[in-house]
Amino acid sequence: MREIVVFSGSAHPGLAKDICDGLGVRLAPSTISRFSNDCLQAQLRANCRQRDVYIVQPLVRPTQDMLMELLLMVDAARGASAAQITAVIPHYAYARSDKKDSSRISLGGRLVADLLGTAGVDRVLTMALHAPQVHGFFPVPVDHLTAIGVLADHFRGLDLADSVVVSPDLGNAKTATQFARLLGLPVAAGSKQRMADDKVVIDAIVGDVAGRRAIVLDDEIATGGSIVELLERLEDAGCTEAAVACTHGLFAGPAVERLRNHPMITQVVTTDTVPAPADWPELQVRTVADLFAEAIGRIHAGESVSSLFDGVDPAYAPPQGSLFDQS
Amino acid sequence: MREIVVFSGSAHPGLAKDICDGLGVRLAPSTISRFSNDCLQAQLRANCRQRDVYIVQPLVRPTQDMLMELLLMVDAARGASAAQITAVIPHYAYARSDKKDSSRISLGGRLVADLLGTAGVDRVLTMALHAPQVHGFFPVPVDHLTAIGVLADHFRGLDLADSVVVSPDLGNAKTATQFARLLGLPVAAGSKQRMADDKVVIDAIVGDVAGRRAIVLDDEIATGGSIVELLERLEDAGCTEAAVACTHGLFAGPAVERLRNHPMITQVVTTDTVPAPADWPELQVRTVADLFAEAIGRIHAGESVSSLFDGVDPAYAPPQGSLFDQS
Amino acid sequence: MREIVVFSGSAHPGLAKDICDGLGVRLAPSTISRFSNDCLQAQLRANCRQRDVYIVQPLVRPTQDMLMELLLMVDAARGASAAQITAVIPHYAYARSDKKDSSRISLGGRLVADLLGTAGVDRVLTMALHAPQVHGFFPVPVDHLTAIGVLADHFRGLDLADSVVVSPDLGNAKTATQFARLLGLPVAAGSKQRMADDKVVIDAIVGDVAGRRAIVLDDEIATGGSIVELLERLEDAGCTEAAVACTHGLFAGPAVERLRNHPMITQVVTTDTVPAPADWPELQVRTVADLFAEAIGRIHAGESVSSLFDGVDPAYAPPQGSLFDQS
Amino acid sequence: MREIVVFSGSAHPGLAKDICDGLGVRLAPSTISRFSNDCLQAQLRANCRQRDVYIVQPLVRPTQDMLMELLLMVDAARGASAAQITAVIPHYAYARSDKKDSSRISLGGRLVADLLGTAGVDRVLTMALHAPQVHGFFPVPVDHLTAIGVLADHFRGLDLADSVVVSPDLGNAKTATQFARLLGLPVAAGSKQRMADDKVVIDAIVGDVAGRRAIVLDDEIATGGSIVELLERLEDAGCTEAAVACTHGLFAGPAVERLRNHPMITQVVTTDTVPAPADWPELQVRTVADLFAEAIGRIHAGESVSSLFDGVDPAYAPPQGSLFDQS
Amino acid sequence: MREIVVFSGSAHPGLAKDICDGLGVRLAPSTISRFSNDCLQAQLRANCRQRDVYIVQPLVRPTQDMLMELLLMVDAARGASAAQITAVIPHYAYARSDKKDSSRISLGGRLVADLLGTAGVDRVLTMALHAPQVHGFFPVPVDHLTAIGVLADHFRGLDLADSVVVSPDLGNAKTATQFARLLGLPVAAGSKQRMADDKVVIDAIVGDVAGRRAIVLDDEIATGGSIVELLERLEDAGCTEAAVACTHGLFAGPAVERLRNHPMITQVVTTDTVPAPADWPELQVRTVADLFAEAIGRIHAGESVSSLFDGVDPAYAPPQGSLFDQS
Amino acid sequence: MREIVVFSGSAHPGLAKDICDGLGVRLAPSTISRFSNDCLQAQLRANCRQRDVYIVQPLVRPTQDMLMELLLMVDAARGASAAQITAVIPHYAYARSDKKDSSRISLGGRLVADLLGTAGVDRVLTMALHAPQVHGFFPVPVDHLTAIGVLADHFRGLDLADSVVVSPDLGNAKTATQFARLLGLPVAAGSKQRMADDKVVIDAIVGDVAGRRAIVLDDEIATGGSIVELLERLEDAGCTEAAVACTHGLFAGPAVERLRNHPMITQVVTTDTVPAPADWPELQVRTVADLFAEAIGRIHAGESVSSLFDGVDPAYAPPQGSLFDQS
Repeated sequence: MREIVVFSGSAHPGLAKDICDGLGVRLAPSTISRFSNDCLQAQLRANCRQRDVYIVQPLVRPTQDMLMELLLMVDAARGASAAQITAVIPHYAYARSDKKDSSRISLGGRLVADLLGTAGVDRVLTMALHAPQVHGFFPVPVDHLTAIGVLADHFRGLDLADSVVVSPDLGNAKTATQFARLLGLPVAAGSKQRMADDKVVIDAIVGDVAGRRAIVLDDEIATGGSIVELLERLEDAGCTEAAVACTHGLFAGPAVERLRNHPMITQVVTTDTVPAPADWPELQVRTVADLFAEAIGRIHAGESVSSLFDGVDPAYAPPQGSLFDQS
Repeated sequence: MREIVVFSGSAHPGLAKDICDGLGVRLAPSTISRFSNDCLQAQLRANCRQRDVYIVQPLVRPTQDMLMELLLMVDAARGASAAQITAVIPHYAYARSDKKDSSRISLGGRLVADLLGTAGVDRVLTMALHAPQVHGFFPVPVDHLTAIGVLADHFRGLDLADSVVVSPDLGNAKTATQFARLLGLPVAAGSKQRMADDKVVIDAIVGDVAGRRAIVLDDEIATGGSIVELLERLEDAGCTEAAVACTHGLFAGPAVERLRNHPMITQVVTTDTVPAPADWPELQVRTVADLFAEAIGRIHAGESVSSLFDGVDPAYAPPQGSLFDQS
Repeated sequence: MREIVVFSGSAHPGLAKDICDGLGVRLAPSTISRFSNDCLQAQLRANCRQRDVYIVQPLVRPTQDMLMELLLMVDAARGASAAQITAVIPHYAYARSDKKDSSRISLGGRLVADLLGTAGVDRVLTMALHAPQVHGFFPVPVDHLTAIGVLADHFRGLDLADSVVVSPDLGNAKTATQFARLLGLPVAAGSKQRMADDKVVIDAIVGDVAGRRAIVLDDEIATGGSIVELLERLEDAGCTEAAVACTHGLFAGPAVERLRNHPMITQVVTTDTVPAPADWPELQVRTVADLFAEAIGRIHAGESVSSLFDGVDPAYAPPQGSLFDQS
Repeated sequence: MREIVVFSGSAHPGLAKDICDGLGVRLAPSTISRFSNDCLQAQLRANCRQRDVYIVQPLVRPTQDMLMELLLMVDAARGASAAQITAVIPHYAYARSDKKDSSRISLGGRLVADLLGTAGVDRVLTMALHAPQVHGFFPVPVDHLTAIGVLADHFRGLDLADSVVVSPDLGNAKTATQFARLLGLPVAAGSKQRMADDKVVIDAIVGDVAGRRAIVLDDEIATGGSIVELLERLEDAGCTEAAVACTHGLFAGPAVERLRNHPMITQVVTTDTVPAPADWPELQVRTVADLFAEAIGRIHAGESVSSLFDGVDPAYAPPQGSLFDQS
Repeated sequence: MREIVVFSGSAHPGLAKDICDGLGVRLAPSTISRFSNDCLQAQLRANCRQRDVYIVQPLVRPTQDMLMELLLMVDAARGASAAQITAVIPHYAYARSDKKDSSRISLGGRLVADLLGTAGVDRVLTMALHAPQVHGFFPVPVDHLTAIGVLADHFRGLDLADSVVVSPDLGNAKTATQFARLLGLPVAAGSKQRMADDKVVIDAIVGDVAGRRAIVLDDEIATGGSIVELLERLEDAGCTEAAVACTHGLFAGPAVERLRNHPMITQVVTTDTVPAPADWPELQVRTVADLFAEAIGRIHAGESVSSLFDGVDPAYAPPQGSLFDQS
Repeated sequence: MREIVVFSGSAHPGLAKDICDGLGVRLAPSTISRFSNDCLQAQLRANCRQRDVYIVQPLVRPTQDMLMELLLMVDAARGASAAQITAVIPHYAYARSDKKDSSRISLGGRLVADLLGTAGVDRVLTMALHAPQVHGFFPVPVDHLTAIGVLADHFRGLDLADSVVVSPDLGNAKTATQFARLLGLPVAAGSKQRMADDKVVIDAIVGDVAGRRAIVLDDEIATGGSIVELLERLEDAGCTEAAVACTHGLFAGPAVERLRNHPMITQVVTTDTVPAPADWPELQVRTVADLFAEAIGRIHAGESVSSLFDGVDPAYAPPQGSLFDQS
């Protein structure tokens, strides 16, 4: 069997190291240089020849530099005769650019997927893409993981009496429904109504939340604006308090300030797909490193990755559903 | 300026002819042959050299034959030195296969887009893709039209007192909202909750419909099952009657039977992106041929297609919205 | 060594199962779904990761559905990280569309080869392509098998006294010559003269057939029209009776009726590259499953496939000849 | 309309000049340099930007140098922003390498077609490909001309009493049949039987030639060996004399010696797709320059090239026939 | 003739505007948005359909953002059916990453060229690539301009008595030689000897500079370190003073401080391929906007760009030289 | 581990055999046929299936035939299902065509690299490319070897007193500097000044050579003209005698005559990347076969090739240096 070599870009070396620990290998050394004209250069400092190379790099701020690092590292691995190159992108930020809702705009989600293919990526390993269709933007196989098992584990040990899972957006409530099933809880959802291009108003809660404690689940929290609005609606509807959970905890701009001391919020839970903010010690961060390590181990051994989610533990039930609505 | 040549496959020659009438050109002749081993062959019977070739073919039953006809016609046009080939696909049926919600399933929406590219398509002109992300599956530019202006025109002349626009699926309510705005009506939505792989239950109506007359708007109606369930929920919620409107009126299997004499339904309106069922004379069919003709004319003349939807007539307002949710 | 996984589309599961028996593996399960809008979807129900995947699917009626199934299964296997995907196409029907003998016609043989490449096929394993040049249409390696050894085996045990091998078309007599050499028989041929686009007249027999018993050998029999005409010419030339042998026994339209009770015909022999007609119990069907199993085993083990045809048994002598005629 | 620019490689500048005369343009200057390490370099000495560039180069001895010249000229034209590049290859010699009739041999006909595509060719204009399937090897549109009208013109003015058109190979007799129809003559054919890899024996003449004068028609004559054998068979069959006609008169090795003074041969007619041998003044050479000029003019003007062969003059009837044999 | 549309990214809108002024067109509006997760999105706010689109963007700090803007704008233009997309990259910073002089390093110069091709660029218009071989990295035609005529114009009006042109690097002295010829001056060069990976020492001046005034010419000045060392060597060799000229005046890090008040330096001249530093009012900036405007005009009109450099004015003599050294 | 199969084209079978000896494998048989129309065909006569195939072919005179042989052999190996194909090109002659220094010239170095990719090459193994940037022309990984260790070994045993290494071209002196370091010698260089397109004049020697014995090192010697000029300059500068060393000893045209009996030259040393001239028995030829064998062995075993040059023996120090000059 070919050897595994795991490299990390600058985006999240801690996660890369944890994945390596899970795999029982050492993180392979590499160097990113920045030259006086601000161009980047990558050098991989371990033999890649005929090896399965994994490059760990979530697309986080500064996003363009992190993307270029990833592309250059892939280019270097290909030039060094890697047998197979997997881009491990725990957070694929460009997934949000997934449709043309104005004239003549770029479609970054597809473009970046194509750029990765051009650089020489053979496979992408990612988690919780913003929309499931983004999977289809990639020209190479994608292994798409979910963190809802990890997040459900967090809540399993807690008192869940009178709790209800709440999705901020009824249109994307499927994941919340799965999450609720894992915890044996009911589900509710905000009914997001977009009133203008730059303002989002939540005008209703679908489902019964009065007198209940909410567990709000979202795939990604950036500025936290939608969550705060949702909490107002929940309060209006008689909800007493809320825990907040998300896969990708970006917490950009005013997010920490908005959420850290919000009177409704009892705790915020996220994962380490992206680095945690420095100034928020109470933030609960559950690791997905083991999940990525296990997936890489299975990819390498030629074992099924999807079965990673349906084995003994029902917590990892895979996304279900019939492709075609029976409309 | 190069000449336009428009061909039609077998799927919907009537629409192709109407588009040609709108353009003031004659439909160019072509022949599809089926050989004794069931293989197809296309012959284009008009000069394509250095011309802008448009091939009109919605993907309707028998879908695989219609797709193969389209691919063979594109191949023939490319081999005949067409300057530019546009596949005019008013209904892109494979758009429904847009995500991997089970292990190891095909992603037909992306695959067929790639097959069209391989055959030699330079551009796709289509209408009302099932999900806006499907746009990103194509390796070539896509001009994506909407029929909501055409459908709104239909209702403008009617008595709209006490009417409310209803979307079957709150998650996809954006189009219904635009449609409602065109008619100056309020909007409501079914909250679709999928309970099992093969059974969909609508368990709530979001928005006020009591004592109102619904105009149900969907992008596509196949078997009509979801619509019938929605109507039950609407009735429960005190809705008195319903008109049903959709862009792609496939009406497959039991659909005609289910909808034609449904006690709640006052009328069903659709467009001619696909051929109308033979056994339903009362079905209201509004043509989109003029819209396609105008779009082709603009593509050919190098005029903006998006501006087709924002000119004098507010009925054709384009899809709006900010790409990134402010989450 | 990587594992073999063999899937079958709907075209000929019996052959796929027999190939698996020859290989000593179980046919892997898969599901083809047809949705209400007539689109197809494939799901492979066995792990493909890092495996050598073989998908067995001759292109038989309904040909377009069978082709689309094959493309979707290949797409699913690629998305599931198969190490290598071989399309096993015992009968590649589109090979007949191999030249442009009219203006602006499609070249289906090349187009379908390109579509297979786009879907993700790494290799094609096929048998008896209609013209040897079709090999060159594929963008991937092709392993091209011959059934003449299998057909010769059938006749070896029989009384061949006074027999002569007859090719319907002198232009394609090379295969018949090889076949005759395997049986130690003389060879003759019909001289096919095309008089009009839709009518073929055989006006001469080249070689001595008077008082002899013919073994007519063709690569494919579709409607049987050419064979019936050839038999008339053979009778005129004093031939007493005929056995008919072909690799691909499609027997479309009136073929069974024409051949089953033809007074000249003593027996019809074919192979199972395509399913046998249901209504012809006396038809002799020799299996090529062992040949395909052996070829797959050699491909998998990295052994020569061409040497499959030149080992101990001279019956499997490969096609010979100098590439360039010494004109 | 864009401007035409025509360049010539070293293979046949006379033909290129004649084509330019037919088009009413000047042959554009170019330079091929050979460096001390035997590498070639092409420089185009006329502006190509936004122009339709045609590069005339049959693949004749030294074939590899001529091919490399063509590829380098195409590369230079692409780098110089040509709008469209047509490789005009009156004789595509690699067409003879069109099938794999031994293990592990190269398929030069397909490979060279792909190399042309890689260099940047947008279209190929050629004549009398050795097999019609070779058309399908090219990744770009091919305009495929025939010289049989030009050759028939040659014979029209002569005494054709008691003449018969003879094809050396019954398998490829279709072109000879068309040629015979143009002249109102009967047709016969040699029945070529290959006995060994390096020896071809003609053992029969199909059709009545006794007491007649033959017009032997072949697509290409290289060493002339097959023709000489055919003439022996014709003599055996009572044929009195023969004219010989071919499209591509390579006359390699002993061909001139063999044919020039052959007692049966009254005249040899060929075209200028390749340069004529220097030592054969009596050789009749009919030009195809006008045909190429007309085709280029039509390509440039966006007129049909196929209609070039079916206008007023029945002499230029295009190849006919149904794609699928009704077997 | 198709219309020209010129867009600018954020890198250097002033230059883009000046180019538009030279062309007599208005700079077309566009918007670059940065979202809360730091992803970029481009929107082109003018019709691109069937137009020749030019996007002006030198790769300057922050380089990765400027590159991504360019790629997204190209993607948007392609999706908007532009007829032809030219990336106008006056300074292609990644050209410095042009060779693998360590193990397993990325080759950014080639990678970025391929990324541009993937995004949809049809042509690149650039100036003074760091090495001429970088031209060959691009998969599309490149029009490669030189600024030495513009720089020579600057010096023509000045007193050039006792002046000598000095190249910092003898290995790249060709451009300095051309520049010297334009001014009728002698040429000298520093002999750069690399002593260690991170330290460059100039240890000799080739050519006579004693008692002369130097005009130092370099393609790019980043930190200015090499120039300062060269000036020391020039002083040692008896040179009295120096003017400094370069095409790409990046002046990164300590460059302004180093050069602005250097006792040897009389003036520094550069061009506007990149924005000038804000804090250096005496810096002489000559515009290349007219040169780019003229080149775009010629590209658009299908006129020769190379002839732009060899017309009436000998100042714009193109690079000369024989491709192959006569070694 | 997969098996190695090594084939040789006609260019240099002796080197291929020596490489095989170094690897401990037998050279696999193959046949190149030349047909009567001068087309080539390759047949590989050993099983390639699932094997690592290496094809040894330097690009030497007749260069186009050798290139075509290589392309055809690669095509045959790909068609025969080779697992991986490495083109071993000890001398890549087209590297000299690496820039566009005139209008509308071909860029052979890039074109041939692309042709190799089209034919199916997965990796290139080469030595001493004329410019390091040429590495970036290839679409596949390149392993780039250096012969300076081998050449240094030659001189180690000799008396090196008063010796100095001389590079003919100061601009390319980096390799000579490394070579000098290996031998502990000082370095000097000719300052090549190109006066006209076809005439090169060396007008200065940089560094101290008076009273010393030169070891002239060049990457390639073709006609020897530059070397002879350099020797004149060296003599002028007081140099007493010279040894000449180069990697690629082409010795074309008058080279043997010029160098063999030159009064300044004590010996000429080269390697066997190309066949040695037949008429020069005193020429010292050091083999690089072992180096290629070792590299192939490492590629096959998945070991680092770059570490081949930095192990125990400092003679094989790899090229060093920082990518970006600190300008």
